[in-house]
Amino acid sequence: MSTQEPAQRPLVISAPAPRDLDLIFTANARKDLQRRYDIHEVDGERLDELPDNVLAEARYIIGQPSISPELLDRLSSLRCVFNVEGNLIDNMPYDRLFERGIHVVTTLSVFAQPVAEIGLCFALNMLRDVVEADTAFRDGREDWGLASNQDARLLFGSDVGIVGYGEIGRALHRLLAAFHVKLSVFDPWLPASTIRDAGAEPVDFDSLFSKNDVVFIAAAVTTKNQGFIDEKTIRMMRPDASLILLSRADVVDFDALIAAVKEGRIRAASDVFPQEPMPYDHPVRQLPGFLKSAHRAGALDSAFKKMGDLVLEDMALLDRGLPPVRCKRAERETVSLMRSRPVSVN
Amino acid sequence: MSTQEPAQRPLVISAPAPRDLDLIFTANARKDLQRRYDIHEVDGERLDELPDNVLAEARYIIGQPSISPELLDRLSSLRCVFNVEGNLIDNMPYDRLFERGIHVVTTLSVFAQPVAEIGLCFALNMLRDVVEADTAFRDGREDWGLASNQDARLLFGSDVGIVGYGEIGRALHRLLAAFHVKLSVFDPWLPASTIRDAGAEPVDFDSLFSKNDVVFIAAAVTTKNQGFIDEKTIRMMRPDASLILLSRADVVDFDALIAAVKEGRIRAASDVFPQEPMPYDHPVRQLPGFLKSAHRAGALDSAFKKMGDLVLEDMALLDRGLPPVRCKRAERETVSLMRSRPVSVN
Amino acid sequence: MSTQEPAQRPLVISAPAPRDLDLIFTANARKDLQRRYDIHEVDGERLDELPDNVLAEARYIIGQPSISPELLDRLSSLRCVFNVEGNLIDNMPYDRLFERGIHVVTTLSVFAQPVAEIGLCFALNMLRDVVEADTAFRDGREDWGLASNQDARLLFGSDVGIVGYGEIGRALHRLLAAFHVKLSVFDPWLPASTIRDAGAEPVDFDSLFSKNDVVFIAAAVTTKNQGFIDEKTIRMMRPDASLILLSRADVVDFDALIAAVKEGRIRAASDVFPQEPMPYDHPVRQLPGFLKSAHRAGALDSAFKKMGDLVLEDMALLDRGLPPVRCKRAERETVSLMRSRPVSVN
Amino acid sequence: MSTQEPAQRPLVISAPAPRDLDLIFTANARKDLQRRYDIHEVDGERLDELPDNVLAEARYIIGQPSISPELLDRLSSLRCVFNVEGNLIDNMPYDRLFERGIHVVTTLSVFAQPVAEIGLCFALNMLRDVVEADTAFRDGREDWGLASNQDARLLFGSDVGIVGYGEIGRALHRLLAAFHVKLSVFDPWLPASTIRDAGAEPVDFDSLFSKNDVVFIAAAVTTKNQGFIDEKTIRMMRPDASLILLSRADVVDFDALIAAVKEGRIRAASDVFPQEPMPYDHPVRQLPGFLKSAHRAGALDSAFKKMGDLVLEDMALLDRGLPPVRCKRAERETVSLMRSRPVSVN
Repeated sequence: MSTQEPAQRPLVISAPAPRDLDLIFTANARKDLQRRYDIHEVDGERLDELPDNVLAEARYIIGQPSISPELLDRLSSLRCVFNVEGNLIDNMPYDRLFERGIHVVTTLSVFAQPVAEIGLCFALNMLRDVVEADTAFRDGREDWGLASNQDARLLFGSDVGIVGYGEIGRALHRLLAAFHVKLSVFDPWLPASTIRDAGAEPVDFDSLFSKNDVVFIAAAVTTKNQGFIDEKTIRMMRPDASLILLSRADVVDFDALIAAVKEGRIRAASDVFPQEPMPYDHPVRQLPGFLKSAHRAGALDSAFKKMGDLVLEDMALLDRGLPPVRCKRAERETVSLMRSRPVSVN
Repeated sequence: MSTQEPAQRPLVISAPAPRDLDLIFTANARKDLQRRYDIHEVDGERLDELPDNVLAEARYIIGQPSISPELLDRLSSLRCVFNVEGNLIDNMPYDRLFERGIHVVTTLSVFAQPVAEIGLCFALNMLRDVVEADTAFRDGREDWGLASNQDARLLFGSDVGIVGYGEIGRALHRLLAAFHVKLSVFDPWLPASTIRDAGAEPVDFDSLFSKNDVVFIAAAVTTKNQGFIDEKTIRMMRPDASLILLSRADVVDFDALIAAVKEGRIRAASDVFPQEPMPYDHPVRQLPGFLKSAHRAGALDSAFKKMGDLVLEDMALLDRGLPPVRCKRAERETVSLMRSRPVSVN
Repeated sequence: MSTQEPAQRPLVISAPAPRDLDLIFTANARKDLQRRYDIHEVDGERLDELPDNVLAEARYIIGQPSISPELLDRLSSLRCVFNVEGNLIDNMPYDRLFERGIHVVTTLSVFAQPVAEIGLCFALNMLRDVVEADTAFRDGREDWGLASNQDARLLFGSDVGIVGYGEIGRALHRLLAAFHVKLSVFDPWLPASTIRDAGAEPVDFDSLFSKNDVVFIAAAVTTKNQGFIDEKTIRMMRPDASLILLSRADVVDFDALIAAVKEGRIRAASDVFPQEPMPYDHPVRQLPGFLKSAHRAGALDSAFKKMGDLVLEDMALLDRGLPPVRCKRAERETVSLMRSRPVSVN
Repeated sequence: MSTQEPAQRPLVISAPAPRDLDLIFTANARKDLQRRYDIHEVDGERLDELPDNVLAEARYIIGQPSISPELLDRLSSLRCVFNVEGNLIDNMPYDRLFERGIHVVTTLSVFAQPVAEIGLCFALNMLRDVVEADTAFRDGREDWGLASNQDARLLFGSDVGIVGYGEIGRALHRLLAAFHVKLSVFDPWLPASTIRDAGAEPVDFDSLFSKNDVVFIAAAVTTKNQGFIDEKTIRMMRPDASLILLSRADVVDFDALIAAVKEGRIRAASDVFPQEPMPYDHPVRQLPGFLKSAHRAGALDSAFKKMGDLVLEDMALLDRGLPPVRCKRAERETVSLMRSRPVSVN
């Protein structure tokens, strides 16, 4: 044993399914993890079979296994659960965790930049019809110059709305700033002043949809907002506006969205779908004006690898008795509202 | 005659072909133009047929007609030629114009933002394979999540190069800043300090191509740089790097570019082509990894309309005896080097 | 009673001493507070004399009165303590509050912008010797032009360090960004990546002091860092560097700081002093090269008034079952480390 | 002779008085200058005594000596006059220079950043009364905390105006951006759109003075604007607003400015004075609320040294037949309007 190492390394339980440690740690980060901690890799479903002394010593859990109240009592040294899937589901007694001062944190923020980048790409594609122009060029039916730009518009100076001003919404805002857009935001969990201080205009739900050229949906699904972007909402959108869906299909009435695009009222791009994969004969697959992306906005290898960095950095703080700052903490008030379905594939 | 109007309005000769006044002025701007000036619309090729007194009074020319030294002598009150096509060709005695203190200005800057926006869109499309993912989705052969992102990369933090730091290069820089890229620039007409002050790294030509993930070509064609991005240059690029051509096809050895994409060494996107339209049986039309755009990057109606605004604003300054600041002035030293072919269609 | 008002307004206990409600609420905000809540104003020292039913109904406390464990038990509906003095002292059972999920929040962030602005002003004054130049001008002994600028330096491009990257440090960073400084930060409570992501360089304590032209001290006092900027630290500073103290005098060996300025090794500016007021015969009062400010960096009326806004906005969120986002939450891990002496005057 | 050197180096006439080469070139830059060019140092008043062949070969002049039309004829290879004093006076036949395509450029831009930094410093000093607070502290009559801040205000979010949007105005704008001020600009030589594109509000002269909390004067003196900020203008200013004079005293009715400060209507800071030095018994010297700076805003050694860099960089471009881009070119239209008195001391 190296002289720099403590005689006894803190104990970590690893149960990151559907992720695995090789996905979320680079080779170097994984070495660092193993050098600093005593890692017990387990099947999350058999966590309660671990010996009492292991459970009693475990300082951290990497993963989001089911934890019963009884099991939690046996985890007497636990300081933090690192949910690396990202969605908080109803499989552990959060109240009891918070009472004991155990942090529950997610690493979802790693997806903010990849999602924002592809979101901006979708928006520019919509405004300039890039996919259609490329396809037409392949087929020898392209228009040249001004003739091909009848509906083309600049993003610069346009009216843009974001629904949900979390990590993704903020990352989008940073990318949009250079375009000098008039940005409005709807986020019912934030006071107007927070949005205003960030340089955007807080607006009500209807204004957000009725007064923008491009609308990004970056709101998480909760128990309260399923399908809240409904047919009436979509009908309020400006003619030829673009709706770009980046969070979860459940927040939108997907059939109404498809209908609006089909009628040529608006354009849409979506990274998420009510069924994944969508049925192979579903008409949205061939629908012009609807840009499709197969849940690939966030799932970059570099994003997954960043998860491990966040975990290691926050463990280092927690080891020193400090609160975590890199991962996002679940909140007592909102944890039970979260209802994004976890992914089954990475 | 309104009392606010001068008894005699300054005389303007209008010969903007291939543009026309309706293309470059909004209805309101055109009214303003006509209210403020006495407009003589002429066929540029028959300019010398205008009566002497009209030529002698003309303060401005909107357009880029051929002007012989003799004709210029007759244009004794001329203050400024507004070249609204944008490319400076060898059809007027620039030296004599400059000697007399007559400005020759272009309105090309209106294209900087549209070109930069689609340029960024091309780059993000390359890095995230958005067109191919959408096409695959249509065909029911899409991969989901991580599986579809094997080659995907963030723009954030990547190495980006720009060749030519004029209006387009600077507009791109502004859009790229939020991505925290390491930006290098090659521009032989600028000292290193200008590029450094702007927040980019001035590099030599070879480094620009060999050390970046994304390379934007925004350099104008001159008598000296035709084909300067040749096979050897392209061969220096990083594996899987993206070359995005936004200025003129003549600066690149287009066959070498196509070959490099065909061999899978790099990716490319281009808005310009050695022949426009390209032959309908040209293999680049079907080439995977080569995003095609039919000279449509700049040609937005809103860009053309902005030309008229620039012209009106600078005329107002010149009327007051001040130098123009909105249009870009041709320079005595470089005007004869310019060799972009003018457009024949808008 | 207006029909928009709930039959019963939530109950708020107000004990903000040394502040008072008129200091921290504008007239309009105070009206809003009273319209929305049933306010019980009390002397913080006699809180336990309130009737049981009032204590049992109290949803919020504005202020930082002493709370015994017994008293806390009687506060059975309490959701949040709004500490408007800002310093967290050992006068309530924080652990028990956190266990029950009661937030303890401070409104200190209102001081970040005023402190950052005067901090920047101090720095520019040091670099350009503005106070001395004005004083000399009064006395008719001023030098003109270059002669008066022998030691003058630009902030632009200089090396700047910040100790403590909390609200003040971040506000300073925002103001410094336009000066293109090379910013290094020391903050032992944050991982390097957080500082790096914010665009600064995380450095160790010694480097921060030895490698900068200007050093801002914005670190809170804790049980562990009293006097940590000691004689040895100050001796490491670059010749003629400036130390600007914005947080609390207790973090610095003040005598050593004075000695270093007296010897002409460095310059200093300070808003805080080991005794306030400093003894009237203390030599620092006349010390050249030491800019003095009588604890006035944050205490702007507009800052105090903003406190009330933060309180109202977070109450609105908490009323809806959401977590507070405008005030800063005390953390279970660090609350007991805080040892800034509360102010006795505003 | 080194093999890298051309057999014959281009000839430069150096007559930079009141500057000298050691002031404007670093040791290394001066070596570079001498390596690249054949330098003839002369007394500007005896320029015409140089032999014909020297005059005929001179490619550049560093300095601003008087040049008669006859002398200009003898300077047959001249490409550029580098005016390193900065003010353009009526001592050479500018029209004839421009006719021949000879550039006349100034290096005034080196002062923009130093002037902007001290200008911001003045503004913050005014808003927070830093000089008075320090002076009071020395005298043992300081107020502590809120009591000392009765008139203190944030720069953040305030209304700020700039008169003259040249290099200094733009440098100020960059520094002010982080303060989220509402910036208005008055500049009669620029169209509204230029100011608007830069992110400021173009306003008329009266609005600029009547609707701002802080007004910066950065306008050059011309034949047309002497004393244009007169008593009536100053009377329009908001009560307790600050006027900060950074360009030339001649643009302001200085007596009216002093009177307004004396009456306590506004505050002022000035770097320039109608007489320099001001008479030693002039009442402005003791005037409270008037911050005085003895023409020291720009005159930093680092600024002077940057002049040499600009000259070398533009010479390198001109040597290659390209136009200069680092120095600012005099304009045919405005050169004769310029009437700043040159400095006699650096």
